[in-house]
Amino acid sequence: IVRREVTRVITPGTLIEEDLLSSENNYLMAVAFRENFNTVFVDVSTGELFVKDFEAINDLIDFVSIVNISQIICEENIFDELKDNLPNKFIEKLDDWYFEGFEDKVKETFEIVSLDHFELSNEQLRVLGALLKYLEYTLMSNLALEEPKKLEESKWMILDSKTVDNLSLIPGEKGKNLYDILNKTKTAMGSRLLKKWILQPLKVKKDIIERQEIVDAFFNDRLLLNEIREYLNGIFDVERILTRLQYGKVSPKDLISLKNTLYIIPNILDALKTNEKFSKYIQEIEEFPEVVELLERALYDDPSSTVGDGNVIKDGYSPELDDYRNLLFHSEDKLKEFEKEERERTNIQKLKVGFNQVFGYYIEVPKGQVKNVPDYYIRKQTLVNSERYITQKLKEFEEKIMSAREKVEILEKALFDELTKMILKYVNDIKKTAEKIAELDVLSTFAYVSQLYGYVKPEFDDEKFIVKEARHAVVERYVSNFVPNDIYMDSLRRMYIITGPNMSGKSTYIRQVGLIAVMAQIGCFVPAKSAKLPIFDRIFTRMGARDDISTGKSTFLVEMSEVALILSKATKDSLVLLDEVGRGTSTFDGISIAWAMSEYIYNEIKCKTIFATHFTELTELSDVYKGIKNLTIEVEETNDGIVFLHKVVDGVADRSYGIEVAKIAGVPDGVVERAKEILEVITKKSELEKKVRVL
Amino acid sequence: IVRREVTRVITPGTLIEEDLLSSENNYLMAVAFRENFNTVFVDVSTGELFVKDFEAINDLIDFVSIVNISQIICEENIFDELKDNLPNKFIEKLDDWYFEGFEDKVKETFEIVSLDHFELSNEQLRVLGALLKYLEYTLMSNLALEEPKKLEESKWMILDSKTVDNLSLIPGEKGKNLYDILNKTKTAMGSRLLKKWILQPLKVKKDIIERQEIVDAFFNDRLLLNEIREYLNGIFDVERILTRLQYGKVSPKDLISLKNTLYIIPNILDALKTNEKFSKYIQEIEEFPEVVELLERALYDDPSSTVGDGNVIKDGYSPELDDYRNLLFHSEDKLKEFEKEERERTNIQKLKVGFNQVFGYYIEVPKGQVKNVPDYYIRKQTLVNSERYITQKLKEFEEKIMSAREKVEILEKALFDELTKMILKYVNDIKKTAEKIAELDVLSTFAYVSQLYGYVKPEFDDEKFIVKEARHAVVERYVSNFVPNDIYMDSLRRMYIITGPNMSGKSTYIRQVGLIAVMAQIGCFVPAKSAKLPIFDRIFTRMGARDDISTGKSTFLVEMSEVALILSKATKDSLVLLDEVGRGTSTFDGISIAWAMSEYIYNEIKCKTIFATHFTELTELSDVYKGIKNLTIEVEETNDGIVFLHKVVDGVADRSYGIEVAKIAGVPDGVVERAKEILEVITKKSELEKKVRVL
Repeated sequence: IVRREVTRVITPGTLIEEDLLSSENNYLMAVAFRENFNTVFVDVSTGELFVKDFEAINDLIDFVSIVNISQIICEENIFDELKDNLPNKFIEKLDDWYFEGFEDKVKETFEIVSLDHFELSNEQLRVLGALLKYLEYTLMSNLALEEPKKLEESKWMILDSKTVDNLSLIPGEKGKNLYDILNKTKTAMGSRLLKKWILQPLKVKKDIIERQEIVDAFFNDRLLLNEIREYLNGIFDVERILTRLQYGKVSPKDLISLKNTLYIIPNILDALKTNEKFSKYIQEIEEFPEVVELLERALYDDPSSTVGDGNVIKDGYSPELDDYRNLLFHSEDKLKEFEKEERERTNIQKLKVGFNQVFGYYIEVPKGQVKNVPDYYIRKQTLVNSERYITQKLKEFEEKIMSAREKVEILEKALFDELTKMILKYVNDIKKTAEKIAELDVLSTFAYVSQLYGYVKPEFDDEKFIVKEARHAVVERYVSNFVPNDIYMDSLRRMYIITGPNMSGKSTYIRQVGLIAVMAQIGCFVPAKSAKLPIFDRIFTRMGARDDISTGKSTFLVEMSEVALILSKATKDSLVLLDEVGRGTSTFDGISIAWAMSEYIYNEIKCKTIFATHFTELTELSDVYKGIKNLTIEVEETNDGIVFLHKVVDGVADRSYGIEVAKIAGVPDGVVERAKEILEVITKKSELEKKVRVL
Repeated sequence: IVRREVTRVITPGTLIEEDLLSSENNYLMAVAFRENFNTVFVDVSTGELFVKDFEAINDLIDFVSIVNISQIICEENIFDELKDNLPNKFIEKLDDWYFEGFEDKVKETFEIVSLDHFELSNEQLRVLGALLKYLEYTLMSNLALEEPKKLEESKWMILDSKTVDNLSLIPGEKGKNLYDILNKTKTAMGSRLLKKWILQPLKVKKDIIERQEIVDAFFNDRLLLNEIREYLNGIFDVERILTRLQYGKVSPKDLISLKNTLYIIPNILDALKTNEKFSKYIQEIEEFPEVVELLERALYDDPSSTVGDGNVIKDGYSPELDDYRNLLFHSEDKLKEFEKEERERTNIQKLKVGFNQVFGYYIEVPKGQVKNVPDYYIRKQTLVNSERYITQKLKEFEEKIMSAREKVEILEKALFDELTKMILKYVNDIKKTAEKIAELDVLSTFAYVSQLYGYVKPEFDDEKFIVKEARHAVVERYVSNFVPNDIYMDSLRRMYIITGPNMSGKSTYIRQVGLIAVMAQIGCFVPAKSAKLPIFDRIFTRMGARDDISTGKSTFLVEMSEVALILSKATKDSLVLLDEVGRGTSTFDGISIAWAMSEYIYNEIKCKTIFATHFTELTELSDVYKGIKNLTIEVEETNDGIVFLHKVVDGVADRSYGIEVAKIAGVPDGVVERAKEILEVITKKSELEKKVRVL
């Protein structure tokens, strides 16, 4: 009698229902530790599978904070450490047996006999095996996974989570970000891919140029661009649909979306064929006419969402189903006739036939007419204003209708299952095509955004970083009259010390330098008049500061840890952006550390560096080292107060206008006036040496 | 033929399925703007409903960031403003018609004829009406709401989101927090209530004492405490269960949980009766013997999760259901017999009867024995190793079994529906009892935690803030050998300037002062040897800093805005905690502002204030104002380096040890040595005035 069956255990990392997912990727990560932290993570909704090792727990934590990892499963011995470092993540420990027999598990899943071509270490395979077992256990269904991809650092620029946050690359605590500005993609697949690209700028010139050329082709062929974007409008989230199909969770509407998507592909191909630059995509994108034809023949265009009610499989696809459907309709017509006959026979005008779940079809008679009810009516229920009856004949109707309905249900379900099985053969090929479509979406979006916002194609150079009229891609969208500024760095101007008042735009300038580097290396154009820049291996940023009291780290310790990281990891090819260093301690300590750090970066690391500071003393560095230059931001003092011109120029700031800012912020006038008095007294009395000169 | 019905539209704020919710509250908020921002918010999973107005958008944003608002619906005219300020929230605009006819809508929902006793303004009712319409539309079911409660500020201390974050009161970006330390509650209802209390400390002495007395009673009666906590272990999340019941979404297991919970209540009451302090709770907590009896009689103890498979309603509850169930079992037995007969008749030993969804019951015969199959077997399906058949007789069995199964299903569902309707009458009373149980849970947890961690009951005083051996409730749990420190403030020692090296514990000290005030005002004991303190109307904190580049706010502007808020809103009864002010600008500007601000707080606001700073110059304030005192943290310099004693003492710091911290943080030795050299040169050369003295 009992046929209970657990079909799926729902965990945050294994959601595949569309409603529960945003258009973002949703990763489940498995972690174990041997010599390194070995991780494997999967997007269950698209089937993508990645392998990545981390040397230090911090790199892992960092990665988890950037990428949308919604759930972590791990070996018991590292559970506590992960939990402590990631208090808000859903983390589960796995028993030992998950990690046993991993080779067989992996072979079985991917239906292969040798694991060699995966090029994974034994440790990596071990974690992969555990993940596969976990998926099998929670999904209770066959897995629809792509082959594991190794995330090798060497192809990509490294961006740590602080930098992602400081440059506002993706949505986070701070509202506005690069992703939101660039994301004019037309498809969910495209928007996911865009985020992935932003977090992993390329490092190999050939790869960047390859993307750039496509963007350029779109940029210069506005007609094609518009046409392609029009077509992309009709592309559904095929990656997710196909994965649901593989898990046996696909709905009729999903298949219609698949059909409509495939229907558009020939149009896209035709459009691309007008421009030879797209030959690679024309080769890689496939058409699937058989699938379109099959779906066209099998499904209604607007199918019911539940299979089995007879409104999914099209008339003519299965003669057997058509017969049962007719029978059902016919019986329902007969029932209408029966109602009419009974009405006439009994002379009860308001007699009605109805249906409820508890005792099926019934005849309802209003209270006032109950006297006319014939003897063979069997009373079943008494309501406030009416009585309900059944008769032998009515129950016979019921039997027929019910049986037809059941047949329709069973048959339609079987036909739908069969249909999905037929499509299953094409899934991997369609997924490959979908990936290419997503790429086209992002690249055409780059071209579109570049036209819309006036971006320019950057060139790459080994040494020079020269950008004319550079803008901050995010800020320029939210302020009127954004003031562009040039960037000029080369081997002779390697490091800049920027001094200047608060609010004048130092921070914006530093960040726009970083953003332009990121945008160029993902293949996008950049907000400027012209741009030439090197390819950076990593961008380091140190900006703002918060302490972390529960771990006993003071603001200054956090700041110094970040500095230590930069000094140990930066190379000649890195870009270092510093916004205030040494503020968390006493003035003299701070100056000393900032000075020594700048010397070290300049002499030892030799990378391009921009350092904004309130320590005017540091501007003396330019007297000592010829590759260090000073920048400041122009300020105009008028009778009504100060005006920030936001213009970056060579030179040193003479004042910092802190008290003026306090006034703007709403500090009471009395306090502001008093602060001015005090300032006058202390600047007069204490003559802080103008020259530090510590050569 | 088609009976499609939308049963619910799922939105983040209206999730009531247990799996999708954590044990936290999950609020849906409606917002409109007339003179103020009028908001109404509801926890759909518990039915609690709150009304609150905000004068400024920032107060609203603040509130939304603290409280777990998962979705906002608003009038069109403020949609853009909300969206800009809360980029990561799910916000929807409502058409105008939502706001029409609100009086009737409210009356209808709460089944009342007059709205007077709600004491809500017309604007508030208007938003309430819109919320009710939205709920009706998305839930498509009757609402199970409590009467709206007005959140009046006057009863509660104000905590802005920055302070909640700075003091780490609840889980957030920073891992460790007060909530996690205190949350040894036994029930989900208790843990939700605890969080609510932490975010809304009380301000009325009587209210605080009322809680304290219960905590004290538990604290002094360890036997009772253990007994109650033991009983609370068995309490399920009745608030949520009852709400699901009201929405018609309750499961059989839910009702068993309800039964088990109600079953425990008499034990709790008996235990409380041993101590007269609990008379209020004894009066307010009700028993529900009729409900327990009914559930006991109607449901199996371990019911199936789906109603209709015959494993939910207990044998004996409905003779009719029992009959159908027996029929079903009997038919299944008969089928077994049939299988045996067929095996003997055909001499096919491996013949088996099976079932599948597509064509029902079948007879399976292995390929090898197909030759023995009788003529009247009708072949239905060919598998790799076997053939499947049906016979006339088998289909007759099928008919019988199916029909019995259907009857069982329909009847069991009807009985279950009837059962939930019977319980519905009790829902409001049970909810009231559940609320009281949640309170008992939190209060007994306070007592438990206070014993566990050695907290002491605080006394309240109009002026004095004297705590002996105070500790930081969170940090002390994560470091060994936490060093306690006294707090001593009164009208003569109203403001402290703390100077001291980095990492010595200044920040921890300041925060522990704030935490102790919060803990005392929620009714908990506090981590100290003894404690006497005033009741504060608000705690202000200014700590750390981050800029918000996309809104054009520099770090320093953010800092100054926070200062401006404090200077305009703090009263004599506030507690102000400052950790570095004036660091985001040049040194002299910073000192001037910090000095002027301190004077203003001291002379005009006159509230208790602790200010940690690296500007040693500010310690001169104590020479000028007699209620300002200096504190510093002891440091011992040994041959191996410096040792932080974490002991707060009267006095002024002589050095800040910034370079030592840089070394600890991992800055390369070369840089550290060079920084020391530079420090020596600049301290010798530039003799910054030791005395500022600006009287």
